[in-house]
Amino acid sequence: MAAELLACDWGTTNLRAWTLDGAGAVVEEADFPMGVSRLGPGEVARRFHDEVRPALKAEALPAVLCGMVGSNLGWTSVPYLDCPADLAALAGGLVAAPGDPTARIAPGLTGPGLAGPDVMRGEETQVFGWLAADRDRLEGRHVICHPGTHAKWILVEDGRIVRFVTFMSGELFSVLGRHSILKCEAPGEDEDAFRAGLEAAGDGGALAARLFTARSRVVAGGAAFETTPSYLSGVLIGAEVQAGPEALGAAGLPVVLLGDARLCGWYRRALAFRGVATSTHDGEAAAVAGLFALYQMEQDP
Amino acid sequence: MAAELLACDWGTTNLRAWTLDGAGAVVEEADFPMGVSRLGPGEVARRFHDEVRPALKAEALPAVLCGMVGSNLGWTSVPYLDCPADLAALAGGLVAAPGDPTARIAPGLTGPGLAGPDVMRGEETQVFGWLAADRDRLEGRHVICHPGTHAKWILVEDGRIVRFVTFMSGELFSVLGRHSILKCEAPGEDEDAFRAGLEAAGDGGALAARLFTARSRVVAGGAAFETTPSYLSGVLIGAEVQAGPEALGAAGLPVVLLGDARLCGWYRRALAFRGVATSTHDGEAAAVAGLFALYQMEQDP
Repeated sequence: MAAELLACDWGTTNLRAWTLDGAGAVVEEADFPMGVSRLGPGEVARRFHDEVRPALKAEALPAVLCGMVGSNLGWTSVPYLDCPADLAALAGGLVAAPGDPTARIAPGLTGPGLAGPDVMRGEETQVFGWLAADRDRLEGRHVICHPGTHAKWILVEDGRIVRFVTFMSGELFSVLGRHSILKCEAPGEDEDAFRAGLEAAGDGGALAARLFTARSRVVAGGAAFETTPSYLSGVLIGAEVQAGPEALGAAGLPVVLLGDARLCGWYRRALAFRGVATSTHDGEAAAVAGLFALYQMEQDP
Repeated sequence: MAAELLACDWGTTNLRAWTLDGAGAVVEEADFPMGVSRLGPGEVARRFHDEVRPALKAEALPAVLCGMVGSNLGWTSVPYLDCPADLAALAGGLVAAPGDPTARIAPGLTGPGLAGPDVMRGEETQVFGWLAADRDRLEGRHVICHPGTHAKWILVEDGRIVRFVTFMSGELFSVLGRHSILKCEAPGEDEDAFRAGLEAAGDGGALAARLFTARSRVVAGGAAFETTPSYLSGVLIGAEVQAGPEALGAAGLPVVLLGDARLCGWYRRALAFRGVATSTHDGEAAAVAGLFALYQMEQDP
């Protein structure tokens, strides 16, 4: 079928774009290494017009965009919507992209986090895409974990995102592995060290002390230095999966892992270690479904 | 009086040296910006001979050194002593510095930490110096906190260090403030933001989420961006002082703060916020007293 919509998930470091047909199936797709943090002011609109639309033969298509493109770093600052919020509320908050009469940008969400308001931009669209893929999901409570640089733990009740909490475990992993005494360039693929890190995560408290054990296990415990990244990952993800459901007031539910398959795999192992059931779902497919659902909702509210 | 001993606290980033008279009083002192991490292999011994001894007119004096100078980064690798350890055990572990017949290097300690063995080099000498300054301190239990890049929480019972736990809060503050989304070059001196951070630290759990509130309070909560370092400091120190005494199994005792006066001041405020009594003691004076006590113990065991 012919493409009917240009859908974009435009984040801080990357842009993924798809054209979709009238049933929401992907016609073409493209990746661009041009997250909004890499672009100067005004450059977002220009490159969307000059590069993204032509690359996907989508010069004349309506477009729906989500992610940091709606922040003050992006195309235009789209106000956060308050939680609880459902798909209709998100569609109602779509804002026209300045200078492109057929492009709409989705708002992010804000809601009560762990110690004050929390924020997200982009993950909400994936959540609504995941919900839209199966009508049964629109009832009841779900705990959704979206791993990443800033992982989101999201509580959904009857189709609405009611609250969420951001864990910056991914960024901690990155900055500690590159700039701290735990610096180590080995790949983080050692299953045994990851599991040792999960054990060292304990109840998730005293994280600043548990992180230091990544050093002391090498200098005093005889562990191999090159297993440090895997161990560090285990400590950080182990502490996060312990705290995430509790932070939502929703411990005991199975966890829906939504995102990159490899990263979800580490979270799945960490949750299994704690006896928590999981299901894993592709974040990219959810983004496509969410952007298409926003488009449909705008056409036929 | 004439100088009788050259005492050195030689750490990762800095070297402090003193000459002491026969009563342990400081005759001369000097600072050198040459921590062991800044020196190449073999350079430690050479610069001690060529620069440190002459600068303090201590060419012919016996010397006692503590800190990372006794690590594999330093002059020679001095094995860790096991906890529990008292001053006599530390003196018994002094090792001759290769190539300098009158210099001795103190061992570090290892002991059961939060999730495996923990290690320290240098802080133990300050603890024994603090203990040596008042005979009453040699009985009973003390919780000592030594703030720094890698803060040490130390439990002392009847003059022996029985266990300790390292929190890398200081290094987290440094790497997050320079390399993460929380990067901000403003000075961390805002009392209100520090206190807001202490509140946001909560029970100290879910630290990776509490840290992200330093971002969301600005983008969604209207807080001033330039207060980020103070707030971040409050979250990290608040979480640490909540977890430190519990990690030692010694909650409820007053806390002895031993170290840099300014940093101890922030810890004092964080502990007062939680209703914990503190006393603050100069770390440099404790290092001098500890190095002198080691010297005396070696002379007259």
